Amino acid sequence: MSLIVQKYGGTSVGTLDRIRAVAQRCLRTQAEGNDVVVCVSAMAGETNRLLEMARQIHPRPDPRETDVLAATGEQVSVALVALAIQAAGGKARSFLGDQIGMRTDDQYGRARILSVDDDVLRASLARGEIAVVAGFQGEDEHGRITTLGRGGSDTTGVALAAALQADVCEIYTDVDGIYTTDPRICPDARKLPRIACEEMLELASLGAKVLQVRSVEFALNHDVCIHLRSSFDDSEGSWVVTEEELRSELQEEHMEDVRVRGLAVDRNCAKLALHHLPSRPGTAAKIFRPLAERGVNVDVIVVAPSSVKGKCTLTFTVERGDLATATEIASSVATELGGKGVETDDKVAKVSMVGAGMRSHPGVAADAFEALASVGIDIQLVSTSEIKIACVVAEDRAEDAVRVLHRAFGLAG
Amino acid sequence: MSLIVQKYGGTSVGTLDRIRAVAQRCLRTQAEGNDVVVCVSAMAGETNRLLEMARQIHPRPDPRETDVLAATGEQVSVALVALAIQAAGGKARSFLGDQIGMRTDDQYGRARILSVDDDVLRASLARGEIAVVAGFQGEDEHGRITTLGRGGSDTTGVALAAALQADVCEIYTDVDGIYTTDPRICPDARKLPRIACEEMLELASLGAKVLQVRSVEFALNHDVCIHLRSSFDDSEGSWVVTEEELRSELQEEHMEDVRVRGLAVDRNCAKLALHHLPSRPGTAAKIFRPLAERGVNVDVIVVAPSSVKGKCTLTFTVERGDLATATEIASSVATELGGKGVETDDKVAKVSMVGAGMRSHPGVAADAFEALASVGIDIQLVSTSEIKIACVVAEDRAEDAVRVLHRAFGLAG
Repeated sequence: MSLIVQKYGGTSVGTLDRIRAVAQRCLRTQAEGNDVVVCVSAMAGETNRLLEMARQIHPRPDPRETDVLAATGEQVSVALVALAIQAAGGKARSFLGDQIGMRTDDQYGRARILSVDDDVLRASLARGEIAVVAGFQGEDEHGRITTLGRGGSDTTGVALAAALQADVCEIYTDVDGIYTTDPRICPDARKLPRIACEEMLELASLGAKVLQVRSVEFALNHDVCIHLRSSFDDSEGSWVVTEEELRSELQEEHMEDVRVRGLAVDRNCAKLALHHLPSRPGTAAKIFRPLAERGVNVDVIVVAPSSVKGKCTLTFTVERGDLATATEIASSVATELGGKGVETDDKVAKVSMVGAGMRSHPGVAADAFEALASVGIDIQLVSTSEIKIACVVAEDRAEDAVRVLHRAFGLAG
Repeated sequence: MSLIVQKYGGTSVGTLDRIRAVAQRCLRTQAEGNDVVVCVSAMAGETNRLLEMARQIHPRPDPRETDVLAATGEQVSVALVALAIQAAGGKARSFLGDQIGMRTDDQYGRARILSVDDDVLRASLARGEIAVVAGFQGEDEHGRITTLGRGGSDTTGVALAAALQADVCEIYTDVDGIYTTDPRICPDARKLPRIACEEMLELASLGAKVLQVRSVEFALNHDVCIHLRSSFDDSEGSWVVTEEELRSELQEEHMEDVRVRGLAVDRNCAKLALHHLPSRPGTAAKIFRPLAERGVNVDVIVVAPSSVKGKCTLTFTVERGDLATATEIASSVATELGGKGVETDDKVAKVSMVGAGMRSHPGVAADAFEALASVGIDIQLVSTSEIKIACVVAEDRAEDAVRVLHRAFGLAG
């Protein structure tokens, strides 16, 4: 007998009919001899509706009261899913965050899970029930309701799987898996049967908005195996496993090691360049400290020597919504440091190649640059990690870049 | 400094604008030097919307899960009211049933309050906050959410006032007080500045649906003074006080003692008559036991000797929705007892006169019968209590009955 955690997103419980379908799937999984814990999001659109009311009442609503409000979305879902399971002849019981000791810190609106009390859930399973748990919500040490932020139910699902040492955390969504890249850009994009957690982490944080980044981090840290699949059909989805598992499986199957597993493109990207700054320790800090203090997330950073001796050019990217704030701060610091103004460009995009195989395969960057050059795409900035190469290019060439790289690394189906 | 509990019904928090108005009133009450605890219902229509979803999912939804669902309505309201108070510059904090130890029994959907932990609320008030408490909901000893049934927020408000020994429980609604009778029937009906709890109890249970019956019982048992008023204006409403308070006030003001305080009419009424039953002990029990077992509430009961010696006629009223069930049971028992069939009439209504003054003023019934006779209204059944006389009449004469009694007892403004 296995213990399976199933997490259903907002679209999967978006209507009463969809909720009935969820109930059927839970019961089928149980009938196959498994213990089932279900974790559900709010019905699609509900969280936005609630938060919009809060914003209409208060321009900057208290995050504590906002969490009390937002948590009702998942409370509605668990009750309806439990009723739907009962209506289909099954046994079910709903659990809210505080009822299963889903203890978090007190960062309202973006709380982090500290611990889960699995006893209550195990007792429910022992009674033959399907335990239906509210995603997204928890309780802090003061007994106040907290929420985990957008997509937080993914993290709830993984945390439940970790606490219960579940065999798998199935995450149901409106896509049927993780693809080598966005099929709208490359029609021959291929569904990945398996992907390493580390790779998923890079892809998730790069704009492949299938799984919340924190849920993947949580899975990595607690050895949780995720199966991402569609709630609309029964097809096998994509398994997110540890890199070791992936390597051993691939070797067993005598498959060639893969250098690039997937490509992501992020259009929410703007570039700033500061020229003629003094090349000395502390210059970068003078720019990035005030940006951090204003909550601007800086992504790619490149410092290059300028043609003038003792001077350098600092280029970096931010989210487009932060460009105005970033420009204001950068201009003020550039003036102070004797620089020559700030050049900005909000028509850029970041194309990223991710693959754990990069560790053992040199030359991926060279191959990528050659491929991009072959179709005349200028690489404005490059940033690399152990398993990722990200290139900032003109936005209107981003899709061309994805297509040529998809071909160059043999990702097509 | 006074401690005031304010309870707002669904209409009073039915829109974001209404919620802003509630916040203003709370702040004004606080600014006048009072500690304020607010108890709110779900936004108008929300509870029905939630329960309708439950019914669509399950024909007979589990009351435990239904309570989890229904309780979200009040949770939304407390968060929005707290945010509205903050938006207007005040300090506020929301509290759910379980957060203030609103302990109930485990009769899901119609739970009764056992105790309230007032410490949390007192601490909130001590911090200068307006404490915003979710009505209608509580928690049983197993830590599961319960709800108190329709109109339960009134009872929550009174229970909070009792636990906190508040000076008054103000109940805000969409009417501005309790009237001598329904002003749609008698345009000269008068708003009652004061009414005794005991009188209110009779009127509330007789279809004057202004206050939930249980909240009035609770007020009577715990000496809570209720001020029923409109949330749409600032006018003085009606005070519901103990009979002793009322008597002493009336004497002080040298007002004449009032025999009848108010008139109620209940159209949800059907009559059954069983003729030719044996006049012997146990006959009535044979009828009413199975009715009780099927959940049929019997209201007025009259047993009268029949013209045939040793036989009697048994007449009683039930709610109209129960008439079919009651007829079925009564027919079966009547046959068994050798009776002569069951006569039914669903075109009757009950007109009731209520007044604590009846205790010391004999002759109220005689005056009432004379008044009804003067306009040719036939009294089909009569039932009396210490402070109430109820007459069952033909439904199409009910309003005439109310008008002539309103005049006869000098209730007009």
